[in-house]
Amino acid sequence: MAIWQDYLTHHRDRFLAEFQELLAIPSVSTNPARMTDVRRAAVFTADRLRQAGFSNAAVHETTGHPVVLASWLEAPGKPTVLVYGHFDVQPPEPLELWTSPPFEPEVRDGRIYARGASDMKGNLMLAVAACEAWLKTSGQLPVNVRFLLEGEEEVGSASLPDFITAHRDLLQADLAVSADSGQPGEDQPMLLTALRGLTGLQVDVRTARTDLHSGLLGGIAPNALHAMVEILGSLRDSEGRIAVAGFHDDVRPLSEADRREIADIPDDTPLLLGYAGIAAAVGDPDYTPRERNWVRPTLDVNGLWGGYEGEGSKTVIPCEAHAKITCRLVPDQDPARVQELVRSHILRHAPQGAEVSFQSLAGGALPYHIPDDHPGQAAAQRALTALYGKLPLHYRMGASVPITAMLHALLGIHTVSYGFGMFDENMHAPNEFMRLRNFELGQTGFALLLEELGRQPRLGDA
Amino acid sequence: MAIWQDYLTHHRDRFLAEFQELLAIPSVSTNPARMTDVRRAAVFTADRLRQAGFSNAAVHETTGHPVVLASWLEAPGKPTVLVYGHFDVQPPEPLELWTSPPFEPEVRDGRIYARGASDMKGNLMLAVAACEAWLKTSGQLPVNVRFLLEGEEEVGSASLPDFITAHRDLLQADLAVSADSGQPGEDQPMLLTALRGLTGLQVDVRTARTDLHSGLLGGIAPNALHAMVEILGSLRDSEGRIAVAGFHDDVRPLSEADRREIADIPDDTPLLLGYAGIAAAVGDPDYTPRERNWVRPTLDVNGLWGGYEGEGSKTVIPCEAHAKITCRLVPDQDPARVQELVRSHILRHAPQGAEVSFQSLAGGALPYHIPDDHPGQAAAQRALTALYGKLPLHYRMGASVPITAMLHALLGIHTVSYGFGMFDENMHAPNEFMRLRNFELGQTGFALLLEELGRQPRLGDA
Repeated sequence: MAIWQDYLTHHRDRFLAEFQELLAIPSVSTNPARMTDVRRAAVFTADRLRQAGFSNAAVHETTGHPVVLASWLEAPGKPTVLVYGHFDVQPPEPLELWTSPPFEPEVRDGRIYARGASDMKGNLMLAVAACEAWLKTSGQLPVNVRFLLEGEEEVGSASLPDFITAHRDLLQADLAVSADSGQPGEDQPMLLTALRGLTGLQVDVRTARTDLHSGLLGGIAPNALHAMVEILGSLRDSEGRIAVAGFHDDVRPLSEADRREIADIPDDTPLLLGYAGIAAAVGDPDYTPRERNWVRPTLDVNGLWGGYEGEGSKTVIPCEAHAKITCRLVPDQDPARVQELVRSHILRHAPQGAEVSFQSLAGGALPYHIPDDHPGQAAAQRALTALYGKLPLHYRMGASVPITAMLHALLGIHTVSYGFGMFDENMHAPNEFMRLRNFELGQTGFALLLEELGRQPRLGDA
Repeated sequence: MAIWQDYLTHHRDRFLAEFQELLAIPSVSTNPARMTDVRRAAVFTADRLRQAGFSNAAVHETTGHPVVLASWLEAPGKPTVLVYGHFDVQPPEPLELWTSPPFEPEVRDGRIYARGASDMKGNLMLAVAACEAWLKTSGQLPVNVRFLLEGEEEVGSASLPDFITAHRDLLQADLAVSADSGQPGEDQPMLLTALRGLTGLQVDVRTARTDLHSGLLGGIAPNALHAMVEILGSLRDSEGRIAVAGFHDDVRPLSEADRREIADIPDDTPLLLGYAGIAAAVGDPDYTPRERNWVRPTLDVNGLWGGYEGEGSKTVIPCEAHAKITCRLVPDQDPARVQELVRSHILRHAPQGAEVSFQSLAGGALPYHIPDDHPGQAAAQRALTALYGKLPLHYRMGASVPITAMLHALLGIHTVSYGFGMFDENMHAPNEFMRLRNFELGQTGFALLLEELGRQPRLGDA
């Protein structure tokens, strides 16, 4: 057994305690009131990296939330790997549905519960632990390693592209490894080959100067909620297909070979639905559920509100209604073009008396794809096979990790996704958790990945 | 000039100060946290009535908010009039749209701004002032007078029917006068002949055990907001007609004579829409706007919410959605039957994967109608003609005042609606106000009404 494994075993309790410390910081990037907490998480991870052996780890300013950079470049002749992660988290609301408070991490039944446990403070901390184990036992890493940790992933990484462009020299690498990833089963690893893109907007509807008395003006005045219902109703047809004109124009057609490859991978949809308490999948009947999630775009209303939400009733005709919408995108859709199509559709379908305006919500993410034969994927496959004793499945994913397409566009490098979260861990939902077993196995897995990457003669595309 | 008029003029500033004192009490009946404030408003009005000369004025308990009763019965041989009012108010939200805080009454440009100013603390206080002026100058009232003031009007007067039944002896009267009324113009009085009924319900939709990650389950999981949009969209057709099967079955057909009578009354719809910042009326094209508001039922979504409402975006598939709905009803619709029809319709139109439940919101109010030739209406017509020098218009109204149908059912008496609010005074909306001129003119008008009622040989229907 590798000596770094002994180190990981010996420091197991400390690594868990440090993970809990990071989880206790409410680094909700979407909430302006949490700005200093996002910064606290940055400072914490920079300190943690320095303690692990990355002596130059530092917090860097951006136009938004700060970024943490660190590097260990003392392996001449070896390739350089840029490890990506994020220390921000989704909002914890609705709070009343959490069994234990979202920022007071609690271990129950071999799981650690807290907002950000699975997405992705656990994956971030296990990668740092693996590097520390290598450095403290061998005095070196098998490859040159840089860390790029951001605090805006959950809000679309808006200021990251400019930051990367301005700091190219500190980010030079042959390959990126995104720790923001997961696996389909407790003993089933995967290799991620594709991720969806994202675009988001808010729709604001106004129908009058002020809320109105439904007795005085009922039957006469337009109702902003009725208008919003009409607008949102027009976005899909009666069978669940997205009805926005042009929405699917740039979607890469699905070949029969693609469909067979997807159908051959064990389908965990029934399991996911079971966890969520859902009887049956819903959506466009022309595609299988897995196809709809992996290679078809979506349009989801994420939030909707207007009028009176308090106790009892209020006989009011609301003058305002608001909706938040995000679309998951697939190759070769462009976030800006799709958002423009949705806006035009809404303006065409807004009923009489409804004044509609928009706000762009996320910076937008391009869809991403890494070739199956990439040397970084080969190294990851060997590491995961050694860890689990079985080959990883080739997965696509319905989620978005904007950094993948961004690093390809700005630094010309591909990204291997390598993480140990699981799909049932309530990411973006109440009672988010991570399995402690995965947190520990992941440390070994990440140390193995570094070893395998060091055996690869080259990692870049050139 | 009547001596009570001198008294009203002399005590003008005190009456205004007392009005402001009542407005400062946040007696929001729908909000459980305001329960003690509703009680404070009850105690305040009982004190005020005692000070005016109703020595037995007292606060009475109900199963809900308290009721205030008072009587002066020292006019033997004269009819007895039951003056109805309410001291509760609508919720003030959204607070940020108020120019001055809703419970810190402020006089600006001859108007007093506060929640409840127009609906109906002003009308309540002017009625008390008029009685006080009679009692303090003549030592008597022209008729026997009882007061019935409740604290649940804005939530459907749920506990009032049982209270009235249990206190019939304290409420015996020949006629009721509801001060919860208004007039169409600053110098244009009206006689109200019909009011709409009301029924309200909340619709709760659930599609999963918890909110879900739109990347992991987008394209697969049902979205509670999509389901709610589909449900609410099914409630009306593309031209704005209510599409609930059976909804209009019990609506009394509109005769050509009715339509002509309605068309002959000057239409203030354009004025109302202008105040509200609305370009054009919307609704069922088979009826005029005034017909839709006066003699046709409505179905309005008063509140709608689900998913993420905070800053920025959250890529979540919401598992819950909620909507509050109220229907205004016309003769001969029954509130319970209409609510049942709406529930059945919603259950029939709920999409796959949506679990729907309901809550009844308001006790429900029957629609009401008082005959044109009722002696109470004749007395009111003479008083208003004397006050304004012109005949009142015969109005119907789209609003609901549940007490009217309730008093007819429980005590066998009709109700004359007699108040001085105006339709542009932002009732149920931010920046509610009352014109000070109407508050003062209304005191004279109410004193005149008492005089005219005293001249009427009989007021009951028997």
